[in-house]
Amino acid sequence: MRSLEGHPELCAINTATLGFTASLRQVIDEIARHGFGGIAPWRREVEGHDVKAVAHHIRDAKLKVTGYCRSTFIPATTAKEFRANVEANKRAIADAAILGAESFVMVVGGLPQGSKDIVAARRQVAEATAELIDHGKKHGVRIALEPLHPVYAADRSCLSTIDEALDLCDRLAPASETMLGVCLDVYHIWWDPALERAIARAKDRITGFHVCDWLVDTKDTLNDRGMMGDGVIDIPAIRAMVEKARYKGLVEVEIFSADNWWTRPIEETLKVCRERLATVC
Amino acid sequence: MRSLEGHPELCAINTATLGFTASLRQVIDEIARHGFGGIAPWRREVEGHDVKAVAHHIRDAKLKVTGYCRSTFIPATTAKEFRANVEANKRAIADAAILGAESFVMVVGGLPQGSKDIVAARRQVAEATAELIDHGKKHGVRIALEPLHPVYAADRSCLSTIDEALDLCDRLAPASETMLGVCLDVYHIWWDPALERAIARAKDRITGFHVCDWLVDTKDTLNDRGMMGDGVIDIPAIRAMVEKARYKGLVEVEIFSADNWWTRPIEETLKVCRERLATVC
Repeated sequence: MRSLEGHPELCAINTATLGFTASLRQVIDEIARHGFGGIAPWRREVEGHDVKAVAHHIRDAKLKVTGYCRSTFIPATTAKEFRANVEANKRAIADAAILGAESFVMVVGGLPQGSKDIVAARRQVAEATAELIDHGKKHGVRIALEPLHPVYAADRSCLSTIDEALDLCDRLAPASETMLGVCLDVYHIWWDPALERAIARAKDRITGFHVCDWLVDTKDTLNDRGMMGDGVIDIPAIRAMVEKARYKGLVEVEIFSADNWWTRPIEETLKVCRERLATVC
Repeated sequence: MRSLEGHPELCAINTATLGFTASLRQVIDEIARHGFGGIAPWRREVEGHDVKAVAHHIRDAKLKVTGYCRSTFIPATTAKEFRANVEANKRAIADAAILGAESFVMVVGGLPQGSKDIVAARRQVAEATAELIDHGKKHGVRIALEPLHPVYAADRSCLSTIDEALDLCDRLAPASETMLGVCLDVYHIWWDPALERAIARAKDRITGFHVCDWLVDTKDTLNDRGMMGDGVIDIPAIRAMVEKARYKGLVEVEIFSADNWWTRPIEETLKVCRERLATVC
């Protein structure tokens, strides 16, 4: 396993970690100044701005773009809404290409309003993903399916496990197809009894690896995620599995933390991220 | 699939649904008066009381005891603590026998204090369960492993999926062994992409079936569970799978709802349970 100590260039910061309190320009500069090797920006920071200028700024700062976050939720109650969701994602993939993002991160969505049919939601996700892979190929952008913790099955992601994501990959693209993969976040996968086997199965499909921590006394499953080391996830064990499966990309920090890390100066959060990456990941 | 309309005798009430606001005697009488066929009491209502007298009262009310809730969490940081947890469960199993409970419900526990080793916690669970099966056989009490939603992996149950529970069953007892099984609660399993296959695999292992609902806007994953029909779980679809797998036991309502159902008179909650069982389950 790679040593991260003294190697922040092997690590990236997902901008959500900083709570969107500063401008993207400031965030890019601060992340670069702390020595990190990459950044994962969100559409809310990019759309409506000059995407080429953003891309320039990131390149000038010598940062890779690990991923572009994230897809518009897919499942819909009407064909029109479904189509609109797919098209919104196509536009975002075009932006991902301009940014030079290594992947477009897909958080697929949960049940559409009023629905209790999770099987139907999954069918819509499969149909949309097939179309988005083609669009990604056209633009040279990898599609990264991110399974989310089952606690989000109703409202954020009917795609819940690594195996489920890999089954979908297998259905939609041959294993040799590198333009479709999975993004693994320790927060979403750490509990999985099939974890080691599923990560080994993922092999070259792994297009991203996110770290944070699960706090025992989680106040809010969306916005109370922990800094690495403050919770119960054995992050080094999971990183070892991921690197054994040949993942060579950056280790990306993504922490949603409304009442803690988002309230601190971004310099402090970045400093602590760097320390924890070096010591507990 | 059995019709529950007009058949409350096919249904049971887990006393947690009523928030422990009334005495167990009152709760037994009210559950019987509403026509239900069974009850699942908790140790907090039974221990320290005359267990034989409780058993008498339940029998006089013509209620089955579907399950006795629930195990002391297993994983521990010391051998002494582990042993104490196992022994506490043995005492509870002896009480379950006196109550005539169809099963002793095992919520196995999460990570012991300070641990990040979920694999070790699972090993402890397997070791303890092996011993408790023997104890259950001696007392004629079935052990029902209840996989809990992965959101509880840290603090309540390192056993998260049906398949994981069945793998443990297969390791510890042959399929013909009816004294070890699984208890399925729609709240914990509805999101599982392997749901249909896993339930079919469970076959005669299913020793209990619990219903409630998952609210889209869940405020608290422990104590904000929904009344059947108020959330997004397709309960009839899951019940059909369970009954196709030959489950013939009662359909048990278990709702943890601190800010809603627990604040209402128990008569009202029981009346609504009966209606919803008849119409949306």
